[in-house]
Amino acid sequence: MTLSTRSEQRCFGGRMGFYTHRSEATGTDMAFAVYLPPQAARGPVPALYYLAGLTCTEETFAIKAGAQRVAAGHGLALVACDTSPRGANLPGEDDSWDFGTGAGFYLDATAEPWSRHYRMATYVNRELPALVEANFPVRPGRRGIFGHSMGGHGALVSALRQPALWQSVSAFAPITNPVAVPWGEKAFSYYLGPDRARWAEWDASLLMAKRPYPGPILVDQGLSDQFLEIQLRPERLEEAAALSGQELTLRRHEDYDHSYWFIQSFVADHVAHHARLLL
Amino acid sequence: MTLSTRSEQRCFGGRMGFYTHRSEATGTDMAFAVYLPPQAARGPVPALYYLAGLTCTEETFAIKAGAQRVAAGHGLALVACDTSPRGANLPGEDDSWDFGTGAGFYLDATAEPWSRHYRMATYVNRELPALVEANFPVRPGRRGIFGHSMGGHGALVSALRQPALWQSVSAFAPITNPVAVPWGEKAFSYYLGPDRARWAEWDASLLMAKRPYPGPILVDQGLSDQFLEIQLRPERLEEAAALSGQELTLRRHEDYDHSYWFIQSFVADHVAHHARLLL
Repeated sequence: MTLSTRSEQRCFGGRMGFYTHRSEATGTDMAFAVYLPPQAARGPVPALYYLAGLTCTEETFAIKAGAQRVAAGHGLALVACDTSPRGANLPGEDDSWDFGTGAGFYLDATAEPWSRHYRMATYVNRELPALVEANFPVRPGRRGIFGHSMGGHGALVSALRQPALWQSVSAFAPITNPVAVPWGEKAFSYYLGPDRARWAEWDASLLMAKRPYPGPILVDQGLSDQFLEIQLRPERLEEAAALSGQELTLRRHEDYDHSYWFIQSFVADHVAHHARLLL
Repeated sequence: MTLSTRSEQRCFGGRMGFYTHRSEATGTDMAFAVYLPPQAARGPVPALYYLAGLTCTEETFAIKAGAQRVAAGHGLALVACDTSPRGANLPGEDDSWDFGTGAGFYLDATAEPWSRHYRMATYVNRELPALVEANFPVRPGRRGIFGHSMGGHGALVSALRQPALWQSVSAFAPITNPVAVPWGEKAFSYYLGPDRARWAEWDASLLMAKRPYPGPILVDQGLSDQFLEIQLRPERLEEAAALSGQELTLRRHEDYDHSYWFIQSFVADHVAHHARLLL
């Protein structure tokens, strides 16, 4: 697996880098970002992976969340990937902003033609950590995961499905119950096909109701979020947590919306949550 | 003067807003950003104005510098404006990235046709503070100014020319001696005409050598900055400070470049510098 370096620049005493590589999981080139804190110069550090929301790229979190300062304080690396394969050239891929390019939903598609390239679950849970751990001074197997909106869904589902891979998890304004909301119904029907029974494997609330993640989960949600009631539905996650005994801290914030102005306001609490579990 | 609100969103307990208005100084619509810290809900706060560099807009600092967190901690408002008039429709305005649109150099042009619209000094020093102080909970006349590159030049020149308007000043990687570097020579020859004697009124090093700003100045400069030796030349500012007795702290930072990864790494020190003088 060969990495190509797009840029590397000094930031808070560490290094902000952007990279591309040929992905086996997606069959396309994929881009990702790594922030190494100053502590990484003295030895491997744990890595915290971030999954962005609809329409975002590997740059969004790096530029807008203000997390490098906090990661430098704790001694955590930050890794952010793209939100889908790009350039797969599948028909309809670029027709809408909430499906296809920029909207991979961090699952492995099983329906044709999407199953050929849209394999973001394998990419995020297997290929990317292996690539990062082989090429950067991070501690193998010491990983946290978090994300926003579609990426909050991706982080929760990744951790609930494979808790051995992720020692900490949190989310900003996640899609909690995709099988029952328009964004999820649209994407799952294309990526997974019409059989709704198979959708449950990729739904955070349904997964959590059956079996809790073996650790505390932090979720932040703005109450002026334009997607709160139709797409996000945090109460579904609370109901699932109550059923299975999941340790869940879900904080609701008056006046905050779905933007990175919201995320940057609370990102320090999230990085601290992961640092407590990973360090 | 009527303001049009583009967006207002909660951020670090305060409010991030973007606005447009018809400018008398430039004869065009102008856009600017205001971050109000939570303290502004209890009474007027001092305001810190930021001037961005070549090709930037009123959004650049707000999105990339990570300053809202620090401003919320100190109780300072942040104001960021655009880097030039836009849509003046002057011939040649959009031909290059270092002159015209996105490159107003924060001076008042005296040569035709630029003198009709490119009056950014009047805009930044007169019109914008009056507009902000009439429409937001900020303390009238209690102002700091800072900026980056072309905007660092703009901040230094504004404070040196009119110290009564600006009670604090600092800069990231400023153009220190525009009359003697390619960016400045190109822009000044268009905006001010061929008579180089008139350029001196807009050159930070020449102004500082004659008369110091009545307060300490903080400047940060990365040593891996790609523009350091040809365009920025911080040693010229040190020479000027030595001549006039200016109190100047110029910090050089190994490995840092000209980007917002550099700015965000040191923005907390700058906001603290201004808070100490404004609060």
